[in-house]
Amino acid sequence: MATPANATTFSGEVWAELRLADASDVPHIHALIHQMAEFELLTDLFAATHELLTSTLFPSPPRPPFTSFTALILDLSSSPLPASGPSTIASHRLDLSASPLADPEAAAFASPRGGGRVTAGFVICFPNYSTFLSKPGLYVEDIFVRAPWRRRGLGRMMLSAVAGKAAELGMGRVEWCVLDWNKNAIDFYEGMGAEVLPQWRICRLTGAALDKYKGNQEEWGGSKAAE
Amino acid sequence: MATPANATTFSGEVWAELRLADASDVPHIHALIHQMAEFELLTDLFAATHELLTSTLFPSPPRPPFTSFTALILDLSSSPLPASGPSTIASHRLDLSASPLADPEAAAFASPRGGGRVTAGFVICFPNYSTFLSKPGLYVEDIFVRAPWRRRGLGRMMLSAVAGKAAELGMGRVEWCVLDWNKNAIDFYEGMGAEVLPQWRICRLTGAALDKYKGNQEEWGGSKAAE
Repeated sequence: MATPANATTFSGEVWAELRLADASDVPHIHALIHQMAEFELLTDLFAATHELLTSTLFPSPPRPPFTSFTALILDLSSSPLPASGPSTIASHRLDLSASPLADPEAAAFASPRGGGRVTAGFVICFPNYSTFLSKPGLYVEDIFVRAPWRRRGLGRMMLSAVAGKAAELGMGRVEWCVLDWNKNAIDFYEGMGAEVLPQWRICRLTGAALDKYKGNQEEWGGSKAAE
Repeated sequence: MATPANATTFSGEVWAELRLADASDVPHIHALIHQMAEFELLTDLFAATHELLTSTLFPSPPRPPFTSFTALILDLSSSPLPASGPSTIASHRLDLSASPLADPEAAAFASPRGGGRVTAGFVICFPNYSTFLSKPGLYVEDIFVRAPWRRRGLGRMMLSAVAGKAAELGMGRVEWCVLDWNKNAIDFYEGMGAEVLPQWRICRLTGAALDKYKGNQEEWGGSKAAE
């Protein structure tokens, strides 16, 4: 594919920061979720809005990171980033001298942090719980990197950072899901030390099937409960 | 199996309450998790302690129910229970006149709420998040009912109550996991309106494989990140 005339080209050294998101990142998070839905051919399930993302991911008062829904943003910059700030989860340096990278959406994804930074991906994670361990873990709901930035080690960097955070917080597990036909992803995750559990299946109650349980407690009084 | 001499027999009408647990329930929760580990032949994974359960499930200050890890207790009583209290999630009446029930562990599982109540099961659930919906849901980590109380509709009652709560809170989904060979459970869940997702697999990073990510952020600086 030819490089679009308006693409921003990144070459040489590029600095990456994985940082805590805030409400100013919502427009980019929304656009990234939509790209993810397109990638997964699941746009019919896409119902995210700026308002819902803001209220659910950035409630006020805010909750400490990794104690509730936590959004992380991956920003890239052609110039060195300042030393880690309070929102930095991980920072890294890419060497693109052997293979420069054209990002046609760099302008649209200008980071709200400014300074020429470009937002290239995001992570959504939240605590889960293992009763056997009686410990919290982290569940990674999404890891997404925009197309031009893939295959540069950024997904691994993001997952490693989340795993490092979970380990530092004394959590027992990091878990996420993968499609069983996605052999490349499975090989990648196994290479990172994960096991893919073959026998567990996810059960989901949603939409009208969920709504019918609203306020139905009375249904289980009396004889029906003895079924 | 003959009824043990010291079993408590329940017959006629029995009142059930699903209620929020508190720290006084920890000994029973611990014992129920151990029974669950035995049932699943997974006692080698069992590492729960009273101290860990107390600190992770009942932190202080407490968090509102269903906004973090939430433990529910199923209590049964041979005498009518008082009207719903602030910790009541659901209350129901069982008719055991056609099939009385002997509970050999009734004394060991005397409920800390007193009044002759017996603890027969528990639920652990916590919020999860759907980016496509940009809404929280509830993930049900465990639903467990002690053996003598099974096949009385109590599991359905508990899952229905959790689903009802999720629907009332405006959540988008209730999810849980099932083993793919457990056809009875799958039929039961599908009968309750759930879909079993065939293609998703759980990936898990735990133990030594997780610990090696502790403090390893530096590993991804420089050339390795460009792989």
